[in-house]
Amino acid sequence: MTEKRLSPWKKQLHDIIYEADTPMGKLFDVVLLILILLSVIFVMVESVGGLHQEVYDLLYVGEWIITIFFTLEYIARVITVKKPSRYIFSFYGIIDFLSTIPLYLSFILVGSNYLLTVRALRLLRVFRILKITRYIGESNKLKRALLHSRAKIFVFLFAVLIVSVIAGTLMYLIEGAESGFKSIPVSVYWCIVTLTTVGFGDIAPVTPAGQLLATIIMILGYGIIAVPTGIVSAEYAKSDDYVHVNTQSCPNCNAPKHRDDAKYCHKCGQLLNPEKHS
Amino acid sequence: MTEKRLSPWKKQLHDIIYEADTPMGKLFDVVLLILILLSVIFVMVESVGGLHQEVYDLLYVGEWIITIFFTLEYIARVITVKKPSRYIFSFYGIIDFLSTIPLYLSFILVGSNYLLTVRALRLLRVFRILKITRYIGESNKLKRALLHSRAKIFVFLFAVLIVSVIAGTLMYLIEGAESGFKSIPVSVYWCIVTLTTVGFGDIAPVTPAGQLLATIIMILGYGIIAVPTGIVSAEYAKSDDYVHVNTQSCPNCNAPKHRDDAKYCHKCGQLLNPEKHS
Amino acid sequence: MTEKRLSPWKKQLHDIIYEADTPMGKLFDVVLLILILLSVIFVMVESVGGLHQEVYDLLYVGEWIITIFFTLEYIARVITVKKPSRYIFSFYGIIDFLSTIPLYLSFILVGSNYLLTVRALRLLRVFRILKITRYIGESNKLKRALLHSRAKIFVFLFAVLIVSVIAGTLMYLIEGAESGFKSIPVSVYWCIVTLTTVGFGDIAPVTPAGQLLATIIMILGYGIIAVPTGIVSAEYAKSDDYVHVNTQSCPNCNAPKHRDDAKYCHKCGQLLNPEKHS
Amino acid sequence: MTEKRLSPWKKQLHDIIYEADTPMGKLFDVVLLILILLSVIFVMVESVGGLHQEVYDLLYVGEWIITIFFTLEYIARVITVKKPSRYIFSFYGIIDFLSTIPLYLSFILVGSNYLLTVRALRLLRVFRILKITRYIGESNKLKRALLHSRAKIFVFLFAVLIVSVIAGTLMYLIEGAESGFKSIPVSVYWCIVTLTTVGFGDIAPVTPAGQLLATIIMILGYGIIAVPTGIVSAEYAKSDDYVHVNTQSCPNCNAPKHRDDAKYCHKCGQLLNPEKHS
Repeated sequence: MTEKRLSPWKKQLHDIIYEADTPMGKLFDVVLLILILLSVIFVMVESVGGLHQEVYDLLYVGEWIITIFFTLEYIARVITVKKPSRYIFSFYGIIDFLSTIPLYLSFILVGSNYLLTVRALRLLRVFRILKITRYIGESNKLKRALLHSRAKIFVFLFAVLIVSVIAGTLMYLIEGAESGFKSIPVSVYWCIVTLTTVGFGDIAPVTPAGQLLATIIMILGYGIIAVPTGIVSAEYAKSDDYVHVNTQSCPNCNAPKHRDDAKYCHKCGQLLNPEKHS
Repeated sequence: MTEKRLSPWKKQLHDIIYEADTPMGKLFDVVLLILILLSVIFVMVESVGGLHQEVYDLLYVGEWIITIFFTLEYIARVITVKKPSRYIFSFYGIIDFLSTIPLYLSFILVGSNYLLTVRALRLLRVFRILKITRYIGESNKLKRALLHSRAKIFVFLFAVLIVSVIAGTLMYLIEGAESGFKSIPVSVYWCIVTLTTVGFGDIAPVTPAGQLLATIIMILGYGIIAVPTGIVSAEYAKSDDYVHVNTQSCPNCNAPKHRDDAKYCHKCGQLLNPEKHS
Repeated sequence: MTEKRLSPWKKQLHDIIYEADTPMGKLFDVVLLILILLSVIFVMVESVGGLHQEVYDLLYVGEWIITIFFTLEYIARVITVKKPSRYIFSFYGIIDFLSTIPLYLSFILVGSNYLLTVRALRLLRVFRILKITRYIGESNKLKRALLHSRAKIFVFLFAVLIVSVIAGTLMYLIEGAESGFKSIPVSVYWCIVTLTTVGFGDIAPVTPAGQLLATIIMILGYGIIAVPTGIVSAEYAKSDDYVHVNTQSCPNCNAPKHRDDAKYCHKCGQLLNPEKHS
Repeated sequence: MTEKRLSPWKKQLHDIIYEADTPMGKLFDVVLLILILLSVIFVMVESVGGLHQEVYDLLYVGEWIITIFFTLEYIARVITVKKPSRYIFSFYGIIDFLSTIPLYLSFILVGSNYLLTVRALRLLRVFRILKITRYIGESNKLKRALLHSRAKIFVFLFAVLIVSVIAGTLMYLIEGAESGFKSIPVSVYWCIVTLTTVGFGDIAPVTPAGQLLATIIMILGYGIIAVPTGIVSAEYAKSDDYVHVNTQSCPNCNAPKHRDDAKYCHKCGQLLNPEKHS
């Protein structure tokens, strides 16, 4: 079975939209980038309020122009790939769709709560900004380090959550509703605010016992803030000068710590036991 | 003297409760996990307040069902181990007991302050959440790193406490009660809030001298926040799962990244070039 | 073509102003340093307010004396270099110019808003403090580490900004204007305040949904605070001033801590025991 | 000239007071430790206020007993060392003196402001807690790491101060007195509160321009919080498995990176050039 082929003009359009190596491809990406930024700024400016009606009209027209451009771009992206479904359900395919649809939806959902719904839906267009990350190629090592330490960070955050639930419950019992600890969920929220050293101060303990417990929570938070940092630092330090070793030992010379992918002993050249090699 | 043996059905129950390798053991653990989470959510929801009486009744029934299940589980855990005392006084034995008992205690402690006491005791059941950690096996390395740096972190936190006591006393002398520094303990509390960079803002210096001292405390805190991080990072870097490799490649199969002390290629068993080995 | 030569007295002045090796050069630098610090303190004291008119007069005279000294210094710096344009458009050339000009500008800009404009312009003279950094030679390694990790930190901060824009928009939709989230830009500002663990508390979520999202933002911020630290730590660890040593000791002089690849003792020149060398 | 000798009973007392190897020495240290802690707790409790007169009388008696013990201890420390001046002007000699004197001074300084002066002086006795650190021997490595990175941390903190002065001045110009930025020193104080991620919230920007500048300051603070951590982490990673090497090369085999104290080449055993050896 032969592969489905794209027609020549589709292939040309594909190179412009998906690649940035040709002058046209570069121009397309820069224009797209500027439009994304403009669109985000438009949404932000609109939310500020207190502007003249003319400005709102201008923003409205501007958003429509950008939405139409994004619509055409979305259609072009779909028709210029061999397997459209692969693009549509990819991360950026979904982001592209979500950042195009809100303005159109404002026509379908008519009624009394018309304006508010539209505004809320249009705000989702801020997700369009995620497109920008596509144009940065240097974030790979950062991403890899985060992925490698993902499991460890998860375990750590889980431990933080458990500590927060218990400490939050104790704070609720000690402080009570008068000082802002209205319920256990609110106390847990306060506890995370404190453990992460954010400390808004909208809720703060006032009783000596509550302040003592808060002190313990903060000292604890100060002591454990080191953990995720240590994890990522170690992950970074394990650059490609280091390889992972396992606990198997050579059947001939008993040398330990072989590379995970080692077939022969690095000390005596003996073939290592393959079934131990996992 | 021969060891005490468990009867067959006890051994089978032991495998289900304590291990998670059989299908039944897995199912038991999943059910237990869900019940623990439900129980914690019940306690939280109850503390929020402002709900219908029916919801409270439902929560009450739900808590009784969970408590009965936990009671049966606790009894099963005790009778299916060879030395029950070892389980009962272990960390999880105590946690299991504390998370089962509160609801029963609400019958014994009758009187005018009945309801409040019950609520307070039932809140202790949140400790049941600690059981969850048992099901995570990946936290070992994290635990080891923390244990190794325990002594250093203790010395560090002790130094932080001394600095807080002295700086807190000075702040009390400088600021006085008007700006919230009511007593030395409160000032020490404020000092820890500041050193740990939490900064609630419920107490804040208002005099120039107080703000100058606060600045010094913060700069100090900023300078020393590095210390626990450095300790844990160094502890992680000392991981013995990794060895240093060099850039020599095998003369036979060209495999790169050999251990510094490797004599033979780990891939093909070829004797490595000794003069390249430096 | 021969190079333009400076006349002898210009060369002497150049050595005094630009270098700190001669006694006169050292004296000049110390005097300059004191004047810069005095000038910054004058600007600060003036801004405090509530002082006697005599103090303001004294500050005014003091600032004029310092400004005249800085003017002469600036002229001397310009005429004693071979290529004046190179100095004028260098980092310190611009700083020196900006720290001299404000007081003169107060004569040109006469009018009703005279005093305020002057004060604002004079405040720019605080940039003069940047001159101090010139006298510290130890900041090179710090600068290099920051420059090397510049790209990574930029990518990281960019990701933080995108997260802030999206999370800020969601907070604006959830919380609304009553709890301080007046517009998307303000919500994004709050989001950065939270992610960076500053947490002023002037704006804080009050709805359960808002507090839940805030919790997620804080946990996220706590998890990713490790990233820039890890980057800089790794950059520092890559210092080539250090080599790995092992625990073997010289068979002749017993000196410990030899390089991993050492063949001879660094202390007595004795051939080291080769089979111990692993 | 022969050394001055201590009489036998003085030598015995010296062993008890200054050393902790004999049972009597250990007992003395433990009693001293408890008295120091009691004294600090007394000062703290007294500052809380709102207690019965009997409690104050008890605290007063307790403080006198501790002060007399400390006086005897101080005299014993002075007479049992060969060179008393060395002890008196050492760090702990001064601390010991400062923690003994306040209660006696309350007799000399009689007058109307009698009580307040006494209280202020007595609060200085909190410095007595510093004695505790003497009994911890594990803090050496921590101290060494901090001392090694002292210069780097100083340069870093100096840079933070300059940024704070400039950013504080700009915030004062943008925000003005209404939102709490009353003067440049207060703005600099706020700037350090923000850069160190403490964020009290007693002062917070309200204008869009001020919030934008605050955002930049926070992002900056978030980016540079990594620097001191990186410094200390790197200092820790350079544990005693690593030695410092210099750039001299062997005159015979040209091998580089010799240990700072190396006399012979580690590669060929050649005597290294001694005048290059610095």
